[in-house]
Amino acid sequence: MPQPIEIICVGNELLIGKTLNTNAHWLAKRITTLGLNARRITIVGDDVDEISSATREAIQRNPRFLITTGGLGPTFDDKTLEGLAKALECKLETNQEALTIVEEKYRKYAEEGKMERAELTPPRIKMAKLPEGAKPLFNPVGTAPGVIMEHESTTILALPGVPSEMKAIFNESVASLLKQVARDVTFFEMGIESTGLIESEMAPIVERVMNDNPYVYIKSHPKGAEKIPRVEFHFSTTAKNSGIARKRVSKALVQLSELIQEKGGKIRPTKPEN
Amino acid sequence: MPQPIEIICVGNELLIGKTLNTNAHWLAKRITTLGLNARRITIVGDDVDEISSATREAIQRNPRFLITTGGLGPTFDDKTLEGLAKALECKLETNQEALTIVEEKYRKYAEEGKMERAELTPPRIKMAKLPEGAKPLFNPVGTAPGVIMEHESTTILALPGVPSEMKAIFNESVASLLKQVARDVTFFEMGIESTGLIESEMAPIVERVMNDNPYVYIKSHPKGAEKIPRVEFHFSTTAKNSGIARKRVSKALVQLSELIQEKGGKIRPTKPEN
Repeated sequence: MPQPIEIICVGNELLIGKTLNTNAHWLAKRITTLGLNARRITIVGDDVDEISSATREAIQRNPRFLITTGGLGPTFDDKTLEGLAKALECKLETNQEALTIVEEKYRKYAEEGKMERAELTPPRIKMAKLPEGAKPLFNPVGTAPGVIMEHESTTILALPGVPSEMKAIFNESVASLLKQVARDVTFFEMGIESTGLIESEMAPIVERVMNDNPYVYIKSHPKGAEKIPRVEFHFSTTAKNSGIARKRVSKALVQLSELIQEKGGKIRPTKPEN
Repeated sequence: MPQPIEIICVGNELLIGKTLNTNAHWLAKRITTLGLNARRITIVGDDVDEISSATREAIQRNPRFLITTGGLGPTFDDKTLEGLAKALECKLETNQEALTIVEEKYRKYAEEGKMERAELTPPRIKMAKLPEGAKPLFNPVGTAPGVIMEHESTTILALPGVPSEMKAIFNESVASLLKQVARDVTFFEMGIESTGLIESEMAPIVERVMNDNPYVYIKSHPKGAEKIPRVEFHFSTTAKNSGIARKRVSKALVQLSELIQEKGGKIRPTKPEN
């Protein structure tokens, strides 16, 4: 079984439906592809108590990693580090390494003419106040550093909410950590689409193919409500190497395709969405 | 304070990053616009234990409504109702009203030539097996009915995962329930964008405007990493009527705009995203 990861996305903009949560989607895909298992995603607002209770609950479920997004910036409502500190019952303290990173960033901004003065105002120092024992992760794109800390068997990674910054820190500092833990686990997926049969007619077939292929997960998705029923089938597995994974998925895919065609349905391959 | 709602989205496709969670986004926006508060969104896989523990945890936080999406269909991995029953420690039983709805749907499909036989196979009867005391909500688009049940002070609403079906049941049966509870609460939002100043330079101003306008929530979102810094400010409030709400937001918006311009930044209005 792949190692479990939990994600906590922080931001009122996600709870009022202003912003579509593409961060969770991107992270879930990357985590899965790297051979780990995104087990739960929780979305809370910019509220210290909400962040800390969601964190405490996640940690009690012992994930190998807990990744948070959002709430690392300079404004008063960036509260993720305060929430993490509260959950872990530790203090926030100015981290020298983080402060140097922030200072360097603002010096650079001033040189580029983006701002007048590079001094370390309280909102800027705020971004370098990390929970005790935490370390900063360099942000190649924006100002607020990411944060890494260990708690019991869980590695906690706090990433910014701005997608380009979140992705940059993930790619530069997080992906390799995950890969190390996943070791030789590979994820593989493929899809087919059937036309002419409705989902409930194929349910017993899918169940049979899943029973015959215990390591392959098959999920059916009815598509729209057109004249001719369309159902997408998504096959996935994790295995020691991509050869085994591919072979397993192909076997299940061929079996399901044949059974659907026997019942009078038509089959065509689908491309995975992005 | 608007009445709190929790959302639980069920589906492995959300946790492997196959599907972008547009359902949560759409629901959060509708809930907010109707004058309620989406307090937390939880995403779990197609697993009875995960669904039931997420449900139990949500109910303990006493939301006025708990809305679930996904997992109501005919296949073996549609497990939401089983998960709800486990969380509430009740049984699943065939609901006559739901069974009639399902039966009628398949009769119609057969008449339209979408399938050969309309009989009630086990996968179809499964969709009519509801937790004890629950009632079906008519699905104008697909087959699986939605489900409504009461538990202590929480109304639980289970909706399908297919977006068109989820939206149709929400609009037909759920929106009016929410509106009734929200009564006279109106949500209002507006946005402006500043150029020329970076977020940390404006953080103290935003805090000041928030202090002067205690009912208005202002959130800043840095945009991209271009030569000229851009920051979006989102203003929102809930009030007894839209006149008060609009007035409150406008006052805060004008104050912030003036303060930013005094500091040398430029301002322009933004349209809310969709």
